[in-house]
Amino acid sequence: MKSRIFKFQQEIENCALVENPVDLLYLTGLSLSRGLLVATKEEVVLFVDGRYFAVAERQAPCPVRLLVGNAVTDWLEAKGIKTLEFDSAFTTVDRHEVMKKQVAELRGTSGLLKKLRAIKDENEVAALKKAAHITMCGFKHVESLLKEGISEEELALEFEFFVRKAGATSLSFDPIVAFGENSAYPHYRAGKAKLKKNQIVLIDVGAVVDRYSGDLTRVVFFGKPDPELEKMLMLTKKAQKKAIEAVRIGAKFEDLDKAARAVFAEAGVEELFTHSLGHGIGLETHEFPRIILGTEDKIEAGMAFTIEPGLYRPGLGGVRWEDVVYT
Amino acid sequence: MKSRIFKFQQEIENCALVENPVDLLYLTGLSLSRGLLVATKEEVVLFVDGRYFAVAERQAPCPVRLLVGNAVTDWLEAKGIKTLEFDSAFTTVDRHEVMKKQVAELRGTSGLLKKLRAIKDENEVAALKKAAHITMCGFKHVESLLKEGISEEELALEFEFFVRKAGATSLSFDPIVAFGENSAYPHYRAGKAKLKKNQIVLIDVGAVVDRYSGDLTRVVFFGKPDPELEKMLMLTKKAQKKAIEAVRIGAKFEDLDKAARAVFAEAGVEELFTHSLGHGIGLETHEFPRIILGTEDKIEAGMAFTIEPGLYRPGLGGVRWEDVVYT
Repeated sequence: MKSRIFKFQQEIENCALVENPVDLLYLTGLSLSRGLLVATKEEVVLFVDGRYFAVAERQAPCPVRLLVGNAVTDWLEAKGIKTLEFDSAFTTVDRHEVMKKQVAELRGTSGLLKKLRAIKDENEVAALKKAAHITMCGFKHVESLLKEGISEEELALEFEFFVRKAGATSLSFDPIVAFGENSAYPHYRAGKAKLKKNQIVLIDVGAVVDRYSGDLTRVVFFGKPDPELEKMLMLTKKAQKKAIEAVRIGAKFEDLDKAARAVFAEAGVEELFTHSLGHGIGLETHEFPRIILGTEDKIEAGMAFTIEPGLYRPGLGGVRWEDVVYT
Repeated sequence: MKSRIFKFQQEIENCALVENPVDLLYLTGLSLSRGLLVATKEEVVLFVDGRYFAVAERQAPCPVRLLVGNAVTDWLEAKGIKTLEFDSAFTTVDRHEVMKKQVAELRGTSGLLKKLRAIKDENEVAALKKAAHITMCGFKHVESLLKEGISEEELALEFEFFVRKAGATSLSFDPIVAFGENSAYPHYRAGKAKLKKNQIVLIDVGAVVDRYSGDLTRVVFFGKPDPELEKMLMLTKKAQKKAIEAVRIGAKFEDLDKAARAVFAEAGVEELFTHSLGHGIGLETHEFPRIILGTEDKIEAGMAFTIEPGLYRPGLGGVRWEDVVYT
């Protein structure tokens, strides 16, 4: 944690305020529903209220003060700090109004820690790989249970029980288990539908292990595949392969999207790929970067992100194939 | 859902924008990770992206449009709308900057739907009571398992399995199961500690049923009670009783806090009550109103909120007693 705080301090211009609980977890290792970290190039202080003070004092990698009254503004004043950087993607308009009254100059940065958090350290990669592994085992468990009459919800629950027993603390998101036409909706979850012979099964699941998310999508044909869906799956796997082949340090993220999209365009089905190619993954299941057309962000060493092309034909079904890639 | 939208429209001055997913769920019944509802006194439109369009069109209690390009601003322009109310407690500074470029005048309201959501309808009360019932059953199950050597984490998991089997879809929050001194930290969760004879056990748990949260705290002495903790528990129960007796339509919420605090003050232990008395409960485990000193909010008919006084003596242990009250 200390090296994370140190890296963060190097990025700060003057003084920065961190309030997003996920960022606080990243920097301090502490789960706080509310807390506030103030950092300058020289100093870092974590402010927490009475509920967390004893634990934070014991475990935080930096000095801890009680978040009460004007503790923060008093500290800023004592240090002569007049300019404060804050996270404009997290701070609400209400909170900003309060801050305006307390600090001479506010400077918003959208996602104050997002670039720092995008570069995973050794421990983070280990946790992500553990999450990916348990997620894959959970998927295989679900796959082994496919039989006529079993419901989407039952399989979703089986996934959860399996990964929780295997060490997951929670799920990255409500499992998507979609039979037949339900697979045509990228954000379907799991319902009462029962599996019938020759249906397509789309499974998109993730387990959280050591606080890091897994995220995996697979498609299984239960019986004889529909020829159209089979073709769509073949194209989707090819699109994923092309995107993964385009991954190299320094490349633009949008080039990955373009590589996948080119495969679909060539087959005349580009308009069936209705979402972005992928997203960064870490303490949050969806985090920076977004892999979309138009982004200027580039691939750096130490990143982790999903690559998940898909094709959806309403009334027939959909396919998606997703893995996490590490750079 | 239609009557909720209707009530919301009555509160609007000109035109309001709803983006908080919990508010969207409340108004439309739809779980959307992203969506946008625009309401005037005459009209309501829900904008969702391609992922949700088909489902929303089928299930939403209002017209649905595709959230793409300038769809929203085009709609506002077509209707001649120049002033837009938004939720300043939800909208981030970044989002506000984008909106400023699109709408002539923005008016922030802190918690646009909080007062509407605080008054529960029949279905909501039924769901809350179901959640409270399953939560209580889960607590009783955990209580029945108390034995030497069982761990806090095991009991937390037992609670979860029990309530999930009983119909809960998730937990309101990570269970708090605290043995002995751990109970002195109001925000302790559950750890490796194993139960020993004559320890105090504090259990704070909640099950989510039909999307509504339960929230219950009980204290059990496993064996012979510590006389000091027993006295603290007696005072806490008395404080809760006094607060519940003070509940009447039109009373200020802070009067409930005062009623509980008076019991503690009389016994000279007021400073051991380190948190607020309670909180509104519904689609969110913590929602409007907050039951704290200094609030002007008053009790209205149809509300649901927790009353949960507690006393905490670091190094010894803590007690809290919590129930949900309906008005």
